[in-house]
Amino acid sequence: MQKLKVDVAVIGAGTAGLVAYRSAKAQGARAVMIEGGPYGTTCARVGCMPSKLLIAAAEAAHMIDLAPAFGVHAGEKRVDGVAVMERVRRERDRFVGFVLEGVDNIPDQDKLRGYARFTGPHTLVVDDHTEVEAARIVIATGSAPTQLPKLQDVGPGVITSDEVFYWQDLPRSVAVIGTGVIGLELGQALTRLGVRVSVFARGGSVAQLTDPVVLRNAARVMAEELDLHFQSEIVGAVQDGDEVVLTIRQNGEERAMRFQYVLQAAGRTPNVAGIGIEQLGLALGANGVPLFDSRTMQCGTSHVFIAGDANNERPVLPEAADHGKIAGDNAGRYPDIRPGLRRAPLTIAFTEPNIVSLGASYKQLCAPGKPKFAIGQVSFENQGRSRVMLQNKGMLRVYGEYGTGRFLGAEMIGPRAEHIGHLLSWAVQCRVTVEQMLEMPFYHPVVEEGVRTALRDLAANIARGCSDIDPDEVEPGT
Amino acid sequence: MQKLKVDVAVIGAGTAGLVAYRSAKAQGARAVMIEGGPYGTTCARVGCMPSKLLIAAAEAAHMIDLAPAFGVHAGEKRVDGVAVMERVRRERDRFVGFVLEGVDNIPDQDKLRGYARFTGPHTLVVDDHTEVEAARIVIATGSAPTQLPKLQDVGPGVITSDEVFYWQDLPRSVAVIGTGVIGLELGQALTRLGVRVSVFARGGSVAQLTDPVVLRNAARVMAEELDLHFQSEIVGAVQDGDEVVLTIRQNGEERAMRFQYVLQAAGRTPNVAGIGIEQLGLALGANGVPLFDSRTMQCGTSHVFIAGDANNERPVLPEAADHGKIAGDNAGRYPDIRPGLRRAPLTIAFTEPNIVSLGASYKQLCAPGKPKFAIGQVSFENQGRSRVMLQNKGMLRVYGEYGTGRFLGAEMIGPRAEHIGHLLSWAVQCRVTVEQMLEMPFYHPVVEEGVRTALRDLAANIARGCSDIDPDEVEPGT
Repeated sequence: MQKLKVDVAVIGAGTAGLVAYRSAKAQGARAVMIEGGPYGTTCARVGCMPSKLLIAAAEAAHMIDLAPAFGVHAGEKRVDGVAVMERVRRERDRFVGFVLEGVDNIPDQDKLRGYARFTGPHTLVVDDHTEVEAARIVIATGSAPTQLPKLQDVGPGVITSDEVFYWQDLPRSVAVIGTGVIGLELGQALTRLGVRVSVFARGGSVAQLTDPVVLRNAARVMAEELDLHFQSEIVGAVQDGDEVVLTIRQNGEERAMRFQYVLQAAGRTPNVAGIGIEQLGLALGANGVPLFDSRTMQCGTSHVFIAGDANNERPVLPEAADHGKIAGDNAGRYPDIRPGLRRAPLTIAFTEPNIVSLGASYKQLCAPGKPKFAIGQVSFENQGRSRVMLQNKGMLRVYGEYGTGRFLGAEMIGPRAEHIGHLLSWAVQCRVTVEQMLEMPFYHPVVEEGVRTALRDLAANIARGCSDIDPDEVEPGT
Repeated sequence: MQKLKVDVAVIGAGTAGLVAYRSAKAQGARAVMIEGGPYGTTCARVGCMPSKLLIAAAEAAHMIDLAPAFGVHAGEKRVDGVAVMERVRRERDRFVGFVLEGVDNIPDQDKLRGYARFTGPHTLVVDDHTEVEAARIVIATGSAPTQLPKLQDVGPGVITSDEVFYWQDLPRSVAVIGTGVIGLELGQALTRLGVRVSVFARGGSVAQLTDPVVLRNAARVMAEELDLHFQSEIVGAVQDGDEVVLTIRQNGEERAMRFQYVLQAAGRTPNVAGIGIEQLGLALGANGVPLFDSRTMQCGTSHVFIAGDANNERPVLPEAADHGKIAGDNAGRYPDIRPGLRRAPLTIAFTEPNIVSLGASYKQLCAPGKPKFAIGQVSFENQGRSRVMLQNKGMLRVYGEYGTGRFLGAEMIGPRAEHIGHLLSWAVQCRVTVEQMLEMPFYHPVVEEGVRTALRDLAANIARGCSDIDPDEVEPGT
């Protein structure tokens, strides 16, 4: 077995791992990056990019359906599933290609191929060919779609989002399990592309939302288009030829339905099992993820850092890149550990309307011991520009601090919310007050004017002062 | 003749006038608002709102054309011009209705119907029925599409944007004169709706752009879709039945072409002629507009204030509202004049891609005596998300201050630029540095990542320090 001694071993060559490797090198460390699977990030291969490509096709199909309301008529719509998936794969491969070029540019001696297993706090075995002794270690092993116990070993019809983007054609029917970001994005896109889709969720969650008023609105808006079933429990599934018979229990009744595919989209599990993590002697938290400091990515006071989806903090690409930078920097300069740049939180589901949360979430603000906060809100149902574009759905709730008047965060489903999310998360990071935001430019007619309405409402509520009236008792726009 | 004595007379009941009237009243002044034309603002009746409605229909038509590239096929597209214009007028009338409701809520004794003419510094005659003696006056008379001398008295085929939104059907063909915001918005929308459109401009300007590199890019991008003729001089026009024969001189050659309509979109002229403005004894600037202080809206040190399009500063709705607020406040509390809230400049042309400028323009930054500034740029041709959506056109140039690193402004043509414009104009108003902006959240995959690329370029150029290399010498993306 080959033996190797390095300053920093990075496990995983995804977004977090690549950035961590480069950052450690930039600190002058001798670093290696270890990867067992194919090169290319989750984002480029099976995540952000291909899903947005599928969504772009779905929006084109949706606009054809919407056009008559503007006086523009298309003939009969025909979705060429082979062509749709061909573009998705072609463009996806192009994005993956950029990642692969980046990997190619890394010197061969810094790249180890194979799966890494800890044999001690400072030692790793890569497959059976190399033993690595590393002064510091960055765990950037990523995550995988969560496999549901009830759906294990059913057959080829039970899949995850990893398989969707390798389809050669659109399927006839899909049951989507889960109403998180991925389930809703894919469920809506496939529906718009003419696939018969049903979406099932164990509970009542909608993407990453925590604000009950926005959540109720989002559930209603999404259900206008999607065959959406909350409070539905999977009883079991059986492969039958090229279909899966899925049995669901809802309201105490069991129902069996046939789908070509059952797509598991019930979250992602960090890849920390089966790598011998117990050899590190670290305190482990939920999902077996080592406890770590989110400003330094350091696990306890150890020589181990954890970055990206593997740490299960916020499994989205921008965070993975920031994690990787911080973990790589600190692994490189260890023991001189420094807190890295963390930005205002921002999460976007690219459904239509987009579902966005930023800054402090409603749930975080409601945590025990937190002071009361003020809320402002707007419905987009009669918002001028949204109505002009026939995208007048959704609502925004904005949160502010009594006393200081500082803007804290927001949750939203609404048109162009991915952009509103940037605007408002920048405002959170700039630590501005709601009054200062109202002094900013708002053009006309724009969706941002809806944001202004919510901010005016928030400013008035802040000025009114803290009271015991529960703003959630008032359901708006109904 | 009825005689009336008031604290504040507001001439005009458009956006600026309505806000000025309300603001003066809020200061406790006895105020009247004088309007000769129909109630309803330029924005709602013939401006922002109906043009965005036409554009929304045009985008639907455009998406049908674009859909096959995603693998989604529509049958033969058919634009129902009657239905398109019916929705434009119906929704327009709804927006106008909101304005009219607001006017209805103003006490009758505060509303004077008729055209006002100054007979002295403090006296106005309204039509022939009322003489108003006013301690202070707000001129909010708005603007009208500029009438071109060569196109006067030709016949019913020569129109302005005022007439477009009363069409019962889409015309067969339109010559648009002017490549300002209105000319390009309408020219592109009508083209996308199947109208044969040619656009002619005397010079080479594109919307409000002043940055030569962005302007060149914008001219090329717009010309991909539009039959666009720069450096074209109108020789004359003759009405022939239901068509106009328009003669244009370009490159020394004259060419006569037939169009159903010739649409004058060569700017707007402030409505300050014919109201006896010379009676006020004020110093007048360009277009006969009194010189005024843009922080107070006061004309010299007089009792006269000028707000909205009438002052010809930036004839867009949000500015008119801010002007009206400042002018009304100050007219109300005169002689205690105070500077009002002016926001970071933001101008948006709702073409596709949007054309946006914000903060300090390239031209302003290049003014004699100004220090050198740094530039960063990005092309959207290979920007990830823009390409996913097949909206990968355009470019952004961002400007920053050497030394301080402060972000100064930007000019752009590109996807979703109306939202980028808000993000960046807020950054200008927050007086943040380029480095601070790079620490803000950027999600993935989003158009905002293109902004980050430009900001990184700008940060590098600021760090490099001031040099004599002309950044405009380098044409990007070619």
